Amino acid sequence: MVFILKPNVPKDKIDTFISGWEQKGFSTIFSVGTEHTAVCLIGNTAEVDLDQVVNTNDIVDYGKRITEQYKAVNRTVHEDDTIIKVGDVSIGEGFFTVIAGPCSVESDEQILEIARSVRKSGAKILRGGAFKPRTSPYAFQGKQTEGLDMLRQAKKETGLPVISEIMNQTQIDLFDDIDILQIGARNMQNFDLLKEVGKSKKPVLLKRGLANTIEELLMSAEYIVSAGNNQVILCERGIRTFETMTRNTLDISAVVLLKQKTHLPVIVDPSHAAGARSLVPPLSKAALAAGADGLMIEAHNNPAKALCDGAQSLDLGQFSSLMEELKKRAVLENKII
Amino acid sequence: MVFILKPNVPKDKIDTFISGWEQKGFSTIFSVGTEHTAVCLIGNTAEVDLDQVVNTNDIVDYGKRITEQYKAVNRTVHEDDTIIKVGDVSIGEGFFTVIAGPCSVESDEQILEIARSVRKSGAKILRGGAFKPRTSPYAFQGKQTEGLDMLRQAKKETGLPVISEIMNQTQIDLFDDIDILQIGARNMQNFDLLKEVGKSKKPVLLKRGLANTIEELLMSAEYIVSAGNNQVILCERGIRTFETMTRNTLDISAVVLLKQKTHLPVIVDPSHAAGARSLVPPLSKAALAAGADGLMIEAHNNPAKALCDGAQSLDLGQFSSLMEELKKRAVLENKII
Amino acid sequence: MVFILKPNVPKDKIDTFISGWEQKGFSTIFSVGTEHTAVCLIGNTAEVDLDQVVNTNDIVDYGKRITEQYKAVNRTVHEDDTIIKVGDVSIGEGFFTVIAGPCSVESDEQILEIARSVRKSGAKILRGGAFKPRTSPYAFQGKQTEGLDMLRQAKKETGLPVISEIMNQTQIDLFDDIDILQIGARNMQNFDLLKEVGKSKKPVLLKRGLANTIEELLMSAEYIVSAGNNQVILCERGIRTFETMTRNTLDISAVVLLKQKTHLPVIVDPSHAAGARSLVPPLSKAALAAGADGLMIEAHNNPAKALCDGAQSLDLGQFSSLMEELKKRAVLENKII
Amino acid sequence: MVFILKPNVPKDKIDTFISGWEQKGFSTIFSVGTEHTAVCLIGNTAEVDLDQVVNTNDIVDYGKRITEQYKAVNRTVHEDDTIIKVGDVSIGEGFFTVIAGPCSVESDEQILEIARSVRKSGAKILRGGAFKPRTSPYAFQGKQTEGLDMLRQAKKETGLPVISEIMNQTQIDLFDDIDILQIGARNMQNFDLLKEVGKSKKPVLLKRGLANTIEELLMSAEYIVSAGNNQVILCERGIRTFETMTRNTLDISAVVLLKQKTHLPVIVDPSHAAGARSLVPPLSKAALAAGADGLMIEAHNNPAKALCDGAQSLDLGQFSSLMEELKKRAVLENKII
Repeated sequence: MVFILKPNVPKDKIDTFISGWEQKGFSTIFSVGTEHTAVCLIGNTAEVDLDQVVNTNDIVDYGKRITEQYKAVNRTVHEDDTIIKVGDVSIGEGFFTVIAGPCSVESDEQILEIARSVRKSGAKILRGGAFKPRTSPYAFQGKQTEGLDMLRQAKKETGLPVISEIMNQTQIDLFDDIDILQIGARNMQNFDLLKEVGKSKKPVLLKRGLANTIEELLMSAEYIVSAGNNQVILCERGIRTFETMTRNTLDISAVVLLKQKTHLPVIVDPSHAAGARSLVPPLSKAALAAGADGLMIEAHNNPAKALCDGAQSLDLGQFSSLMEELKKRAVLENKII
Repeated sequence: MVFILKPNVPKDKIDTFISGWEQKGFSTIFSVGTEHTAVCLIGNTAEVDLDQVVNTNDIVDYGKRITEQYKAVNRTVHEDDTIIKVGDVSIGEGFFTVIAGPCSVESDEQILEIARSVRKSGAKILRGGAFKPRTSPYAFQGKQTEGLDMLRQAKKETGLPVISEIMNQTQIDLFDDIDILQIGARNMQNFDLLKEVGKSKKPVLLKRGLANTIEELLMSAEYIVSAGNNQVILCERGIRTFETMTRNTLDISAVVLLKQKTHLPVIVDPSHAAGARSLVPPLSKAALAAGADGLMIEAHNNPAKALCDGAQSLDLGQFSSLMEELKKRAVLENKII
Repeated sequence: MVFILKPNVPKDKIDTFISGWEQKGFSTIFSVGTEHTAVCLIGNTAEVDLDQVVNTNDIVDYGKRITEQYKAVNRTVHEDDTIIKVGDVSIGEGFFTVIAGPCSVESDEQILEIARSVRKSGAKILRGGAFKPRTSPYAFQGKQTEGLDMLRQAKKETGLPVISEIMNQTQIDLFDDIDILQIGARNMQNFDLLKEVGKSKKPVLLKRGLANTIEELLMSAEYIVSAGNNQVILCERGIRTFETMTRNTLDISAVVLLKQKTHLPVIVDPSHAAGARSLVPPLSKAALAAGADGLMIEAHNNPAKALCDGAQSLDLGQFSSLMEELKKRAVLENKII
Repeated sequence: MVFILKPNVPKDKIDTFISGWEQKGFSTIFSVGTEHTAVCLIGNTAEVDLDQVVNTNDIVDYGKRITEQYKAVNRTVHEDDTIIKVGDVSIGEGFFTVIAGPCSVESDEQILEIARSVRKSGAKILRGGAFKPRTSPYAFQGKQTEGLDMLRQAKKETGLPVISEIMNQTQIDLFDDIDILQIGARNMQNFDLLKEVGKSKKPVLLKRGLANTIEELLMSAEYIVSAGNNQVILCERGIRTFETMTRNTLDISAVVLLKQKTHLPVIVDPSHAAGARSLVPPLSKAALAAGADGLMIEAHNNPAKALCDGAQSLDLGQFSSLMEELKKRAVLENKII
């Protein structure tokens, strides 16, 4: 149940209203938008008489029942689009923010060459994996803390904000100076990790799990936002289906639905969805056309020698060409790229 | 195994070459493109010595082994894009052809009003179901032959070519004057129907089955083309996955892969994929951006009263707006809309 | 809505009751069981006042609303298990009927050798494909009418009833003397075929489609039963999932649910589910333990040389051993094997 | 690549053989069975000349290449079935070990009443969730450390070994006195957790992820075993498919395949697969028939009031009846129950 407050209500009246509910055993979410300020109740609201609350509280304009289980991330509770700021970079409605970089940080030279090139092409954020979740214990597990250092160095030299994947909740301190914490598809329902990044002040990029529904993705975002961190970027990266010609099946409809149901930014990772380089440009254009707020793309200075995911990485020239294509199209979608 | 012939080879030499193979027990596909003329062998080519064939036949330029099971629809065998003509309308690479109309033909007035409106908005072909495959025997099964008559009347009055779904191989004669035969998702592997439409001279729109792979779709097209009818339009319309928020999951990557692997036109049906009206415009734009050659969209003059699939039908105003959006974008994709 | 009638109601009163509903525009299903006789209404029953009908019709004992879309196959409408008789063979609750034979009938000798052997081992019905649905147009399409003749010959010499797959509704006459019409997975929603076999007097074995839900399988059975043929055997044969180590994923829970929801017999095809011989015996035992009424198993006198599906066919010795295992276990499940 | 050693080879010769490989950069797995002792090489063995190794090392009987990525859990490397001992309880081939208890530990009385009853019915291990992974942050998250204490108390009073789910790698110390560490489906690819339990000396029950392949399950087990802990029990608990009538689709074939491919014990969780109580007994019997080494079943003293998963929990009487059914059948499968 959400109550939309009248304009210009004094803060102490709001506090009284909220604490009244909390004394009755409800949790509350307080949401401030440009148009509305709202208070959402969490708990068993079945017996709350909505009309009576509206009639007896002069600060309340009107109320609505929220049938969805997700509340804080629900557009009904918070109508304004959330725009996340990372340095000068904005992520959210009205922008089309491209994150690019290698699957894995491999060396200082590699990450720096890639960073400089993708920045020049128009990428706004640099990605690079340091801790790598791999199906096999015998596969390359990433450069780990050394990889994070290389990423920091590339950030320093290029000015690009950086994102890297965090694998468990004990690593938060290691990610000092890393601008965005990425939660991988396999960890989308690692609830202890979600709770921990929910206590952080950093933006979190949350990838949809391989077999998770759109609603489950929203519920995982709700874990983070309800813990106090409303800077969550959702990422569609393909789901598991019976089709074997692609690595995963990009669920392009999920982008549209997420944009309808939540105020959070929604981006697409076409590289992991497709698993093949030649699919990345058309899927990127499709993501933009469907309403995504950005992309996360694997780009590498030498895909043939990449330590992981080479087959799905664009080379730097291909990335640059793709960015030109996207720039032409972004204007039609009213997106600043 | 395919042999690319040298330019300007006399016809009798080609005939001798082909009959030589047929005497050895192979079937052949003879493919004429703008750049190349090719002869493809069907059968056990494991013991054919490719180099020796090239060296001993002076009409042969070079040869390649075809590892895929699909041959006649394979771009390796036939490099040129197939453009299908239906009256003045072209379907294939370089065009973006929109097919629109109601799920079901319901009355003369209904189909005529819709036909006039979608033509004005820019649709090139009119769709309308007469025989309806329904999960329940108690659900509306379509207006049947009467529905086809209404469709013919709408064609006559508007000049739009028409498409309707054929349910079994005994119905071909009923589809006289219907320009394109549609094979529905549930019939994609109704092989007897495929063989029969393969003998027809009419274009066939073949929808991907709910749980069929991209390769199986190509193999079903191969049934039609190898039976003598190379006018096949492939249609991605969503696949079955675990996600329940959409009716099906639109496999946008399939569009890209199909365009790579076959010379046949590839279109998208966003209405059946999504199952909800609000998803149709963004999915349509995404299909165009991904490289599709057209769309098949459900549009209705009164979706709230449609006898089937009302929830996913655009009203005529929404369809018109969508067409405006698509026209702006088609030029960027080098498509004539 | 179903009305359970009181015992020993005279037939003319029932007829009057039924025709009253039909005059109001409802279709009816009249169901006679050992305990109950029932009349089920098909149509919009929302405005029918159930209590009033019970109170004003003295032949009616009580009534229930049927929320499921399937009526005639619904156990709520028809509580007794349907037992289908094919010659001396019974299929349904209390029996465990094994159907065995090759994927394809290949020759008189082949089918006869297999028929004799599987009969001796305990199979009650002989299977053999004559018309084969194949993904590729270039693959072996079956021995066709000649294959049916071979099957008839094997029936004549061994006394085993026979089953073979029918591919389209024009073939019904060809299946003269074939005891059970099999509808393959790819035709589960070929509704014109369903309607046609619904007019036949022969038992029909209906396989679940690769991506069809349990409810859709019941609805397809409803097509057949509502057309007048209540001799339908349902067959679970594996569904499409992301798992690639098996050909399909046997949905063993479907057996349990189908037995709860319908009175029709339910059998399992472990061969097509698994796609590999070594899985067939354990899956067969699991099917028996889960409550299935029988099996359809591919058995061949020389699997290594089978014209199709050799990898999943048991040889005749393996089939015999499996039957011994099943006989030991059937008694525990109160099944006559 | 695995080398099977001759019988009775002195330990120092084996050590020399192993250290020779490690100096060349390979990792090794040393596997001792009742029949064979084997050394498996991990690394790039493409250039190792297998025959030469056999011919030049007199302790080697013969060698084989291992094509699978999983080595330590591979039956080719370790032919003997692994039997895991938990107190007096054995888990593995030849046994059918039933683990039972509530989804969540709720109170001392609840867990004790359930423990006493399921022990009497024949369960050998008590399950009880203390930390609960829940889709919603607002749902009951378990009794946490207090729940573990209640479980320890029940263990003390009944003598049953206990199992509970561990959510992250920092919790290992909390699980003191808990006999088996359960890794839930959502954590199957939480690789940091896998590595950590790999260092533990306790048995680990590893559940298959909702959308993970059989091969990925084996690779996750490989993480644990290669880290030094070979006491891993695999658990099939249903996968995500398009079917909605069950919570998940129990992949019964996975049981058969896992038993072929690995020496580790394989059990089934029918409760989470089905999501409905009435399916649990037939699925349990099917699991036994398919070759599973045991079950994990949710049983509750008052399912209607259970704090989670009540709909799929058996009551104590139903559990007892099921155990009687299983005992009758276990003898036929050569399993000690």
